[in-house]
Amino acid sequence: MKRLKIKEINSCENPPEKALIGGWVRTRRDSKTFSFIEINDGSCLSNIQIIADSSIENYDNIAKLTTGSCISILGKIVESPGKGQKWEVQAEKIDIHNNAPEDFPLQKKRHSDEFLRTIAHLRPRTNKFSSVFRIRAELSQAVHSYFYEKGFRYIHTPILTASDCEGAGEMFSVSSDSVKNGFFFSKPANLTVSGQLEAEMMALSLGDVYTFGPTFRAENSNTSRHAAEFWMIEPEMSFCDLEQNMDVAEDFIKNIITRTRKNCSEDLELFNRFVDKTLFETLENILENRFVRITYKEAVEILKKSGQKFEYDPVYGADLQTEHERFITETEFKKPVFVYNYPKNIKPFYMRLNSDNETVAAMDLLVPKIGELIGGSQREERFDILQKRMEECSINKEEYWWYLDSRKYGSVYHSGFGMGFDRIMMLVTGVSNIRDVIPFPRTPGSIEF
Amino acid sequence: MKRLKIKEINSCENPPEKALIGGWVRTRRDSKTFSFIEINDGSCLSNIQIIADSSIENYDNIAKLTTGSCISILGKIVESPGKGQKWEVQAEKIDIHNNAPEDFPLQKKRHSDEFLRTIAHLRPRTNKFSSVFRIRAELSQAVHSYFYEKGFRYIHTPILTASDCEGAGEMFSVSSDSVKNGFFFSKPANLTVSGQLEAEMMALSLGDVYTFGPTFRAENSNTSRHAAEFWMIEPEMSFCDLEQNMDVAEDFIKNIITRTRKNCSEDLELFNRFVDKTLFETLENILENRFVRITYKEAVEILKKSGQKFEYDPVYGADLQTEHERFITETEFKKPVFVYNYPKNIKPFYMRLNSDNETVAAMDLLVPKIGELIGGSQREERFDILQKRMEECSINKEEYWWYLDSRKYGSVYHSGFGMGFDRIMMLVTGVSNIRDVIPFPRTPGSIEF
Repeated sequence: MKRLKIKEINSCENPPEKALIGGWVRTRRDSKTFSFIEINDGSCLSNIQIIADSSIENYDNIAKLTTGSCISILGKIVESPGKGQKWEVQAEKIDIHNNAPEDFPLQKKRHSDEFLRTIAHLRPRTNKFSSVFRIRAELSQAVHSYFYEKGFRYIHTPILTASDCEGAGEMFSVSSDSVKNGFFFSKPANLTVSGQLEAEMMALSLGDVYTFGPTFRAENSNTSRHAAEFWMIEPEMSFCDLEQNMDVAEDFIKNIITRTRKNCSEDLELFNRFVDKTLFETLENILENRFVRITYKEAVEILKKSGQKFEYDPVYGADLQTEHERFITETEFKKPVFVYNYPKNIKPFYMRLNSDNETVAAMDLLVPKIGELIGGSQREERFDILQKRMEECSINKEEYWWYLDSRKYGSVYHSGFGMGFDRIMMLVTGVSNIRDVIPFPRTPGSIEF
Repeated sequence: MKRLKIKEINSCENPPEKALIGGWVRTRRDSKTFSFIEINDGSCLSNIQIIADSSIENYDNIAKLTTGSCISILGKIVESPGKGQKWEVQAEKIDIHNNAPEDFPLQKKRHSDEFLRTIAHLRPRTNKFSSVFRIRAELSQAVHSYFYEKGFRYIHTPILTASDCEGAGEMFSVSSDSVKNGFFFSKPANLTVSGQLEAEMMALSLGDVYTFGPTFRAENSNTSRHAAEFWMIEPEMSFCDLEQNMDVAEDFIKNIITRTRKNCSEDLELFNRFVDKTLFETLENILENRFVRITYKEAVEILKKSGQKFEYDPVYGADLQTEHERFITETEFKKPVFVYNYPKNIKPFYMRLNSDNETVAAMDLLVPKIGELIGGSQREERFDILQKRMEECSINKEEYWWYLDSRKYGSVYHSGFGMGFDRIMMLVTGVSNIRDVIPFPRTPGSIEF
């Protein structure tokens, strides 16, 4: 008999009379002749109540079941007289797979996020973290569905790379003992910080493509917003300018949030109640507003005129600080804001030089309470200008012969952006530490499990 | 005006009268007063024909367009009198984004796969490789859709790891200069060879989960079937025994092949005609047969009785050699075969010990012309036996405290398997070298791009 999941039972108008169910015991309470067992099977946030009559043959052991134990139940699905649940199960047979010892760390009480990080292998058995990971799966599927339906092709860009896209990032080195002299790959290899350059090659052949894979930064700093290993989404589109790039980014974010809200409503409710009471407000603010679009120059002017006291004075030509970004999106506009056309000297070589010869067609999306969610640009498609920019940025042109090739043969205007998947997970759940949206997070000093 | 893709035009019964199209020139031929330009935009295998009248203002330049150039066309979509194409475009305006120099390496002639590997950044502009990567995207989506529809949760298991799941594999080491003394993660870190152990933790909370991500092997050997970086799919299911595990594997493979055949029929036709004339036969053999299931013991007996001369004699207790696997699936049964219940001494510690105390509940799926496509097992869920097996296999139990924890608290029978995504790409396309199904393949000595 195939196991029926709690989610399937709950979505039934007419569930089968008899079913096989499996799950983990959350609570048990006994009356004189019954045991009431709440189990959860991870398929949804809701538990289902099992009623075990004392006439069941192994009732003695059932009456000893502890929190965290695992059982299968063959029984009748009947309407529940209890509140907040549609169905319950009258057990006919219960198989006890494991009776958890009393030292099971997740007894029914509140645990701190810090403590739960030390048992990342068990925390998905809590309500909060099982919800996080269901939402993570749904949001992933939303990403794939969005692009698939728009005719984008999913591509796998390499994780091992000999280049450094940003020309800056601190990268992890990769080596192997299996080659005794010299390098496994004939030259030093790193873990990628971005699949963009390779994605451009694919976009200049297939049209619209996207990546969704892990990227890495070896930054030795412990913050609540950075992990050494994180998943990135990078669409890249031929025949696409900066304006259209921003259109796609806005539509994409609204679409995946809408889908996740619809399909994870029960899980998200939990976060709105217990994690961030302004969560739904924040999401509605994103969904219901057309995102603002201002140039970097306008942003600096707004900051200067604001009368606000900043730790760092806003200066044209310098990077916007987090405090500046927050002011723009949270105080000035109170909604998501694209800032575009940044000075070329603070942006990488591959961004398209504007006709002012001073700014490049870059865009960052700032979101209230999250900060920078997306960074993107129109790419420099002109062979000569790209070469000049590489020289200015001290990029080794010989190493990038293939990248330059793409501007020599069949070049066309094209654009793309990158979005940290874990960042949007934080946005959608209201969870404030990146360690709490990743199953087994990797941060400096932390690689248990 | 939004760009219309060739795929969209071709699937229209009534395309819009006027459209904006962009793409790369495949061929151009001129009559007295017209230029006929075939362009491809990567959205599908088919080109579309553009007719440029000499009255167009930049006709002089249009008449010089070379293979590989990139143009946009504003024009009328009209029914094509030509064979094999439904629509063509009468150009009103043509923007030339780039006129490719005559040394563009992909002139209209046959190129060897070996040569094309040296220009991996350009090869997706050929028919063969654009088809490969469209199929790769479709097959990826088929994987996600299959599991999503069955209620599996997609999980991201870590790429950076301190453990070695197989207790054997040659792993890449990862390090960083950003920590001056000691290790970035407080201990040595490697690139994962499998997400299985972490996936088990998630399955024992969420029920049914799967991974789909990159894995790595630092094996210094050059074969047509191994890459240093490859994508793996690893489902893991609670309340699932070996039999059900095989059921899922069989259903999964048939489902994703069926979907890809349906959605990529034009691309697959190319492979059946030019790459492997038995491709469709091979795929039908998989789709139309119930997979055979035999024990390892039966397999060895078949090999012994076969009268076949093998390089290595089949011996009970030793690994099956490739020649043995091929005989079983290609000669004996001529269809896919699950071989299960292998001797414990040739399998890893985490596979479930059978009641004979000699074999474990492992299964491998052998497929004609491909060999081993899937490896899986029911996992050892019994705390005491797992500990004993770890000791026998010289696994450091302290390091795996969290894995053992999962057998202490709420353990239940569970199973899973792993499938190399690039392997099934080879199966579905008939492409015989793994380097030709990966956008930028990583093999010993090879990390250009």
